[in-house]
Amino acid sequence: VQRTRGHVLAVARELLAEAGPAGLTYSALAARARVTRQTLYRHWPSRAALLVDLVLEGPEVGYPEPGDDVGVVAREWLTSVRAGLAQPAARAAVLAVTSVSESDPDSALALVRIGADRLAAFNELLMPTGRQVSPDEYTMLYGPVLSRIFFDRAEVNDQFIEAVVAQWVAGLA
Amino acid sequence: VQRTRGHVLAVARELLAEAGPAGLTYSALAARARVTRQTLYRHWPSRAALLVDLVLEGPEVGYPEPGDDVGVVAREWLTSVRAGLAQPAARAAVLAVTSVSESDPDSALALVRIGADRLAAFNELLMPTGRQVSPDEYTMLYGPVLSRIFFDRAEVNDQFIEAVVAQWVAGLA
Repeated sequence: VQRTRGHVLAVARELLAEAGPAGLTYSALAARARVTRQTLYRHWPSRAALLVDLVLEGPEVGYPEPGDDVGVVAREWLTSVRAGLAQPAARAAVLAVTSVSESDPDSALALVRIGADRLAAFNELLMPTGRQVSPDEYTMLYGPVLSRIFFDRAEVNDQFIEAVVAQWVAGLA
Repeated sequence: VQRTRGHVLAVARELLAEAGPAGLTYSALAARARVTRQTLYRHWPSRAALLVDLVLEGPEVGYPEPGDDVGVVAREWLTSVRAGLAQPAARAAVLAVTSVSESDPDSALALVRIGADRLAAFNELLMPTGRQVSPDEYTMLYGPVLSRIFFDRAEVNDQFIEAVVAQWVAGLA
C-alpha cells in the first residue's frame, strides 16, 4: 500500500509539472500510474487531500529537531523550508495549488490544511521552549521566505534567514 | 493611444482570468480586443512588459503619500497593497505570472521587474525620512502580507498590518 502511494505521488508530480493543475485529473493519473481510479479514491477521497500530500510529502530534507531556543528552532525551520522548496517538483506543487485556488475549492482547502499542518508541526518543535506561536506570528516568520522564492525569484541565503529570524524573535518579545 | 492601452489591458485581464497565462497570447488578445498584433507589439514589445503592466496597473486604490515617519509610510504602503489585491483581477494577474515563472522566462523577468519597481516606489515615499530600504528589508515587509493573501488565503486585517509594521520597524533600528 505504501509503495503504491509513493508511486502514485511521484507520477502525480510529473503530471502536475507537465500538464498543470487542470491536467491533474483522477482519470489521467490513474491511466499514467497504471492503477484504478478506485485505488486513487481509496488513498485520497478528495482532490484536496491529494494536493495536500503533493505539497507536504516532498523529499526528505532534514526535518528540524525540537529545541529550547525559539530563534534556533525558527532558523532550522526556515532552513528546512528552503531545502524542501529547492526541489522543482515541490515548487511546482505549491504554485499549482496556489494558482488555481481562487477558482478551485479543493485547492483552496488544501492550502488552508497545509498552513494548519505546518503551524502545528512548528509548534510541536517549539514545545520545549514553552512558547507557542499564533497563525499571525507564523505567517510573519515564513512569509518573507516564501515571497523571496516565489515572488522575488531570488535566493534565500543564510544572511536573509538570519535577518528574518532576528526580526521575528525581537517582535515576539 | 492611452484609451487603446487601457482597453487592451482590460481585455487582457478578462482573457487571463478565463484562459490562464497560457491562453494570454498576442493572437488571442488582438482578436478579442479588436486591434492588430502590430498595435500590441508597439505598446508591449515583450510579453513580460505586458504582464508587468497587468500586475502593476490595477485600479486606483489610493496611492500612499510620502512621509517622514517610516512606520506610517510602511503601514500606508501595506494598506495600499491590500487594497490593490482586493480586486480579483489583480490577484489573478499576480498568480498567473507567478505560477508560470518557473517555465516562462517572460514571466520570471516580469516578476523581477515588478519587485524592483515596487521597491523603488516605496523608497520614493520614504525620501522625507532619510531612510532607504534594501531588497531584503522590503521582502521582510511585504512578504507576510502577500503570503497571508495567497498562501494562507486569509484576511489581511488592520491588526495583522500593525503587527507586521511594528516588527519590521523594530528590526530596522
